[in-house]
Amino acid sequence: MHSPDLVLYTDSSPNGFKITIALEEMGLAYTLRHVQIDHDEHRHPDFLALNPHGRIPVLVDRGAGITLFESAAILLYLAQKSGQLLPPAGPAHWAAITWLMFHSSSVGPLLGQRVHFELFDDSANATAIQRYRQLTEAAFATLDQQLAANPWLAGQAYSIADIATFGWMHIARVIAFDFSQYRHLSAWYERVNLRPAVQRGIRLPAPATGP
Amino acid sequence: MHSPDLVLYTDSSPNGFKITIALEEMGLAYTLRHVQIDHDEHRHPDFLALNPHGRIPVLVDRGAGITLFESAAILLYLAQKSGQLLPPAGPAHWAAITWLMFHSSSVGPLLGQRVHFELFDDSANATAIQRYRQLTEAAFATLDQQLAANPWLAGQAYSIADIATFGWMHIARVIAFDFSQYRHLSAWYERVNLRPAVQRGIRLPAPATGP
Ligand SMILES: N[C@@H](CCC(=O)N[C@@H](CS)C(=O)NCC(=O)O)C(=O)O
Ligand SMILES: N[C@@H](CCC(=O)N[C@@H](CS)C(=O)NCC(=O)O)C(=O)O
Repeated sequence: MHSPDLVLYTDSSPNGFKITIALEEMGLAYTLRHVQIDHDEHRHPDFLALNPHGRIPVLVDRGAGITLFESAAILLYLAQKSGQLLPPAGPAHWAAITWLMFHSSSVGPLLGQRVHFELFDDSANATAIQRYRQLTEAAFATLDQQLAANPWLAGQAYSIADIATFGWMHIARVIAFDFSQYRHLSAWYERVNLRPAVQRGIRLPAPATGP
Repeated sequence: MHSPDLVLYTDSSPNGFKITIALEEMGLAYTLRHVQIDHDEHRHPDFLALNPHGRIPVLVDRGAGITLFESAAILLYLAQKSGQLLPPAGPAHWAAITWLMFHSSSVGPLLGQRVHFELFDDSANATAIQRYRQLTEAAFATLDQQLAANPWLAGQAYSIADIATFGWMHIARVIAFDFSQYRHLSAWYERVNLRPAVQRGIRLPAPATGP
């Protein structure tokens, strides 16, 4: 038996879980390589040759000779490769792309800043904490509004936009960033969380733990 | 004569210029609607109906019945519509997607935070200023490394990845975030800046001014 073409370099973290969830949902064979950020393995020259920015996730498709970094790029690639989780064309396709980009550009990076100032920075930077709470809450409100009118972010079909958003909301839940007041977002969270592939994905390489 | 299908809602700002540049490069007919952020026009209910998050740019394609927000989603849409500025398949296609996502998720949002703390926040938050300088400089170094080996971000062809990155680097230049030490990034900036469509794009709806 030969090893799968797809190799995923990842760790137990918001952007990593997006890809383990997607691979599990799509039923694609892959090899998982655990890059331990805690041990600075993402700064190792072998890893920097794959992603010069030194971040997980990275996906290599050895059959196609393609190396990708950035979780949103990897999700788009896997959707195209599998023909799954992204409506192929028309308004539903572009709705999924829009909400995937909304997550990647307007939600994930700001949650990252909030995590930094609330949990990792010991200067108790009240202005910065306040700023990122406010910006992430505004993003939660936008997601909540979209999910009040639609079961999934892109409309009627579960897609890579939901997976990307869930990857980070799962960490928000683990570290107790409260979003319970956003009823539709919370109900959507529970719906996604019930999926067996999601339950497998958030345990690879290991479940997330609080800070 | 009937008016074009494409309607762009924008302002003179980094994410707006990405789209005016792309439309000018592609030679697509469009109507430009100036949304004046200074006058809070992005908070007007008519605009929030297009983008519930209240940010420019927004693109409406009236012929296709599609409304998009997030600059990266709009760039992907225009590339597909025009068949331009995104290699159609294979490694070059995915390199362009990777670098577009790198900009959208790992560069643009951090430049936005740096602008906030260096130029708009009057609390002189040294920790935050230091953090975002360091993170944006690391991103510049990654771009510089890629451009040392390739004329354009995705390799041999100018693409929407260059346009997205230029939109923000142009503002960095206008507000004097110095990136001259990144030689390849600076030379790439000058190459992009020479393009006639880029010169038109960065003047729509009006040239950017310092803070
Ligand atoms: N925009 C990137 C972000 C990637 C990222 O920040 N990954 C984190 C883990 S979730 C990482 O590798 N952190 C290590 C570091 O920042 O040094 C994506 O969506 O993939
Ligand atoms: N991730 C979004 C960011 C959009 C964005 O932040 N736009 C700015 C102008 S460059 C804006 O509308 N700002 C108004 C505000 O923040 O209230 C994109 O790429 O389009």
